[in-house]
This record gives sequence, C-alpha cells and structure tokens, in this order.
Amino acid sequence: MRTLYDLAGNDDSQRFSPYCFRVKWAMHIKQLDYQSELVRFTEKEKLAFSHQNMVPILRDGDAVICDSWAILQHLDTHYPETPRVFSANAASAAADNFIRHWCDKSLHPALFCMAAPHIYTKLAPKDQAYYRETREKRLGKTLEAVLADREIYFANLQRTVEVLRATFADQPFLAGEKPGLSDVLVISAFMWVDAVMPSPLFDADDAITQWGLRVKKAWAWPKA
Amino acid sequence: MRTLYDLAGNDDSQRFSPYCFRVKWAMHIKQLDYQSELVRFTEKEKLAFSHQNMVPILRDGDAVICDSWAILQHLDTHYPETPRVFSANAASAAADNFIRHWCDKSLHPALFCMAAPHIYTKLAPKDQAYYRETREKRLGKTLEAVLADREIYFANLQRTVEVLRATFADQPFLAGEKPGLSDVLVISAFMWVDAVMPSPLFDADDAITQWGLRVKKAWAWPKA
Repeated sequence: MRTLYDLAGNDDSQRFSPYCFRVKWAMHIKQLDYQSELVRFTEKEKLAFSHQNMVPILRDGDAVICDSWAILQHLDTHYPETPRVFSANAASAAADNFIRHWCDKSLHPALFCMAAPHIYTKLAPKDQAYYRETREKRLGKTLEAVLADREIYFANLQRTVEVLRATFADQPFLAGEKPGLSDVLVISAFMWVDAVMPSPLFDADDAITQWGLRVKKAWAWPKA
Repeated sequence: MRTLYDLAGNDDSQRFSPYCFRVKWAMHIKQLDYQSELVRFTEKEKLAFSHQNMVPILRDGDAVICDSWAILQHLDTHYPETPRVFSANAASAAADNFIRHWCDKSLHPALFCMAAPHIYTKLAPKDQAYYRETREKRLGKTLEAVLADREIYFANLQRTVEVLRATFADQPFLAGEKPGLSDVLVISAFMWVDAVMPSPLFDADDAITQWGLRVKKAWAWPKA
C-alpha cells in the first residue's frame, strides 16, 4: 500500500503544503490509491524514519521517497503503464523545470505573504507557537503586521501572476491545449492558499480562476 | 532583400530593443541575411509604411511584418528549410509562450529599472527629451531618482532572476541540453541591458553570465 505523509491543520481536512498537493495531483492523474498519514508542524518525530523532516514523503512498499519532485519521478518510473506526469519531450520537460523554479522563487513567496496570517488560524494549537516563531523570522515582521500590509502584498502577487493571465489569453493551459505538469505545479500553489483564505484571491471571472476550473474539469479532480 | 528596422542610439552600433534582439537571433540561427535600417525614438515617420510605430519591423520582399513574435512565426513559415525557432512540440511551444510573457511582465520591467538612466546617456540628443518624458512617466520618478534607487532595483532584479539560477543548476539551457527559443527570449533581454550598463550586472562566474556564454557559443553568435 502507498502512504503519503501530508501536512494538516487543526482540522484533518485542512491540508496546506503545495508540494503535497503536487503529489496528490500526480496520484490522481495516475489513478493510484494511497492512504494519507497526517502530520502537524510539530510532529516531526513521525517523519524520523525518512531521515529528514519535510513532507511530502511517499512510502511505496519498501521504498521511502522524500521531496515532491523525486516522488513524481518515482511514480513515472515505477508505474509506466499509468499516464505520465513528466513530459516525454525533453524541451518541454526542461521548460516545466523552469516553471517549477518559478513557483519556488516567485509564486510561492508572493502567495505566502497573503496566506501566512490565515494559515496560523487553521493550525492545531500545539503548532501555532512554532509556526509564529519560524514564519515571523522568515517574513521579518509579525503575522499581524503581515496582515495589515495585505494590500502591498496583494499588489506584488498581482504583478507576479501577470505572466499567467497573459499566457491564458493565448492558450487554455500552461502546457497548451491540454493540461500538463506545469499546470499541476501552479494549481498546487493556489490550492495551498485557497484552502486558508477567508475569501477567494481572485474574482470568479478572473483568467486564473477560470483556468483553475478548466484544470480540475479536464482531470476530473474530485469535488470537496 | 530583407530589412530589419532596429532601434539605435546616438552611436549606430548601440542597439537596445530586446524585441529586435530576438529577431536578430532568429535571423542568425536561420542564417538569413538582412540589412538593418536604424531608427531613433523620434524617427517614427520612418515606420509610417507599417501603419504602426513600433520596432522591430521586418520587410521581407513585399511582406511587412510587425511585432517580434509575428516575425519569428513568419520566418519559420516562410523558410521551412532553415532551423526552426519555435519548438515543433506543442507542450514545449506552450511553455516557451509562458517564458515569453515572463520576460514581458517580470524580467523586462526589472531590467528596465536598472537600465533606464543609462539608456538615456546613449541616445541621440534629439531623442533624449522624448525618452525622459515618456520613461519618467512610466517609472513614476525622474531618471536621476531611478539611478539613486539602483540598489533597491537591483535587489528586485536579483529576486526576479533567482528562477534562472535555480534552473541553470539543473540544466545548461532553459530549453534543456540544447538552447531553444526560451534561451533566445531571455538572452535578448540581457543583451538589451548589457549594451548600456557601465559595468556588468552579474559577476563573471554567475550562473546567468555563464549561461549567456554557453548560448552564444552554442549558436556561434558573432563577437562584437
């Protein structure tokens, strides 16, 4: 049996790791069953078997794979009869890697500044102190100050995602006429944040909102 | 004969349109000869024949093509025996379109804040007043104030290009093992700015500098 170690909030249904969402998308696309082992921020001891302290981790039989990218590679390699996650075209795969790093370096930081104060409210009480200390250090200010500056952070997010809207003016998916890995990477980032925001980041008719609906429809993502 | 209308400074050798660089790269890759018709900012009357006022414009026999993207498409369509600029793989082409828009929306604006005051010094005297007025309006401050804030803009540029360095840690070119259109788009942006900066933006051993050298070597870009 496959087990995915996934980051959860106080409510089990609250999941907020963009990297775990990537893996869940890959499992969904490949129609591979798995069970979830929920982990809170301060339950790192649950991950000791992996000799590191980050989710996602996939246990697949005797194999233990850490890091979402390595897990996606494992899934393509070990389940070659299922739909591929990585593009078979080398140039396309190379471009997907650019978009992966764009998520890490630009999209995730811009989204995190919007989501950070809201993630806090969704955490298990035992996680809140740890989260506040580590995230305030990373952000350079208190969570309350981050919330107060939300208009500045939203303007930065809007600049960051202009590339997405411009692209969706030309093509329905990042991967072109059909969704691909790049769409998985970017939608995983938005799902991470959508799960905690008190109201949607973008209007219902925004090109990004519409694209998100297309991706979920194209791959029949299960409704919550 | 093919004629490329290219934006020039006071010195004919000074060219600074990233979009013109894209076309020059495509002509180089395809080994298509052309002559350059130099245009200054205030010589828009030279472009009247095209019924718009932006470079690049390519005259190719009776055809007049405006917009760099349309020119690249024209070149691939009309010279099918030459190396393609656009990827033949649909997903790869779709990702290149994302990188094109990333250049427009993120990389060019970040670079422009570094280059704007220096471009001014390279312009023909008759262009300087026009340039100062239009660019100060766009930047929201004087060129002198932009120069004074260069450390802030450089920090923003560094954040913007982190995605490139992260990608080059995994692969030699944006397009993978060999350079492709995405490399052309990004190197054209840096060539635009390199041409005017008083000193290089990045160190000689920076991953972006090293990638630029690889691109020029792989395609035997002529030395200045």
